[in-house]
Amino acid sequence: MGPLISVKTIGRLSLYRRLLNRLSTSGTQNVYSHQLAALAGGTAAQVRRDMMAIGYMGSPKRGYDVRELIESIGNFLDSAQDQGVALVGIGNLGRAIMAYFTGRRPKLHIVAAFDSDPYKANRVILGCRCYPIAQLAEIVRELNITVGIVCVPANEAQAVADSLVRAGVTGILNFAPVPLRVGPGVYVEDIDMTMSLEKVAYFARTGSEREVLT
Amino acid sequence: MGPLISVKTIGRLSLYRRLLNRLSTSGTQNVYSHQLAALAGGTAAQVRRDMMAIGYMGSPKRGYDVRELIESIGNFLDSAQDQGVALVGIGNLGRAIMAYFTGRRPKLHIVAAFDSDPYKANRVILGCRCYPIAQLAEIVRELNITVGIVCVPANEAQAVADSLVRAGVTGILNFAPVPLRVGPGVYVEDIDMTMSLEKVAYFARTGSEREVLT
Repeated sequence: MGPLISVKTIGRLSLYRRLLNRLSTSGTQNVYSHQLAALAGGTAAQVRRDMMAIGYMGSPKRGYDVRELIESIGNFLDSAQDQGVALVGIGNLGRAIMAYFTGRRPKLHIVAAFDSDPYKANRVILGCRCYPIAQLAEIVRELNITVGIVCVPANEAQAVADSLVRAGVTGILNFAPVPLRVGPGVYVEDIDMTMSLEKVAYFARTGSEREVLT
Repeated sequence: MGPLISVKTIGRLSLYRRLLNRLSTSGTQNVYSHQLAALAGGTAAQVRRDMMAIGYMGSPKRGYDVRELIESIGNFLDSAQDQGVALVGIGNLGRAIMAYFTGRRPKLHIVAAFDSDPYKANRVILGCRCYPIAQLAEIVRELNITVGIVCVPANEAQAVADSLVRAGVTGILNFAPVPLRVGPGVYVEDIDMTMSLEKVAYFARTGSEREVLT
């Protein structure tokens, strides 16, 4: 257990790491907090607070060492052991998500996928074994999976979430366009693509100055 | 132009509409604010404030009329005219997004898709014409497109966003894992799947009680 840290800080650390990886690939060795802030769309003070939260201090003269900072963020964000992910719902979106995440993180990968359609189960997609949903509890426990991705239709999502949580999952990434009810100790992050597109369409029409209101 | 309204309110209205559509399909005719709030994961007071923002008042005795409310939200959220969407980047994710949004909203649909790979352009996917990216400005202007969906890799995203905005797009749904810089008058909504999964993985490991901190 590290120090107390907010959801927003974790999100920014994930973003910083990706920006730093791009800088590193392009040969940049040092970066100032104000440069990283500009790339991330935040302030230098915010970047410095986030770095202090993970215990990383830059040299005032040369800024942060890009490779060291990538490593520090990784030590903080990533699990020391492999963290297995289960994906439920092998439709168009589920398959695209499997393709998207394959190989992105060495310690965090989709190790099992499930579907209620037997034609979609009992095969291997992108190196990931697919199972009938009836085996969810058994496989999730056997593989010690703690993270679930829900890509089923809205009317099946709550039952899938319940099954995942009962089998030991404590974090869910939910693509189903419906809020999930889970108990305390389970973290849910929603990606609601329909809501996002409707918001974009609304503000594209009416003007984006309204985004500053809450 | 309607009254001033926040991004969060627009998001909730989109969610209410989907929940109401499900209620309507299952035969429910009336719903109280506290029932809708429970489904949406909010409070009854919040639901009532949101309804007042769009000028809809429920009967205190029978709650809201489900069908009337769906229509009121639609009148507020949806464009009176068709609103065309351009998708850029016809990879796995882009194709899944095309499939996901096809037929969901009568007035909001993807009318053109673009890719820098000529093999992916010059064909029709799910009823949507695909073009080489060199034709982006021409087609976006010709079809009067105001909404763009960016599904290209991180290193191409800013250039694509710039092209979209120059051609008249004022709202962007961004799936590329990098912040976009746009001028005032352009609204951007980011869907960062990697960040979301890393957050879920972190809190699955360390405990979700931290989500209340900011």
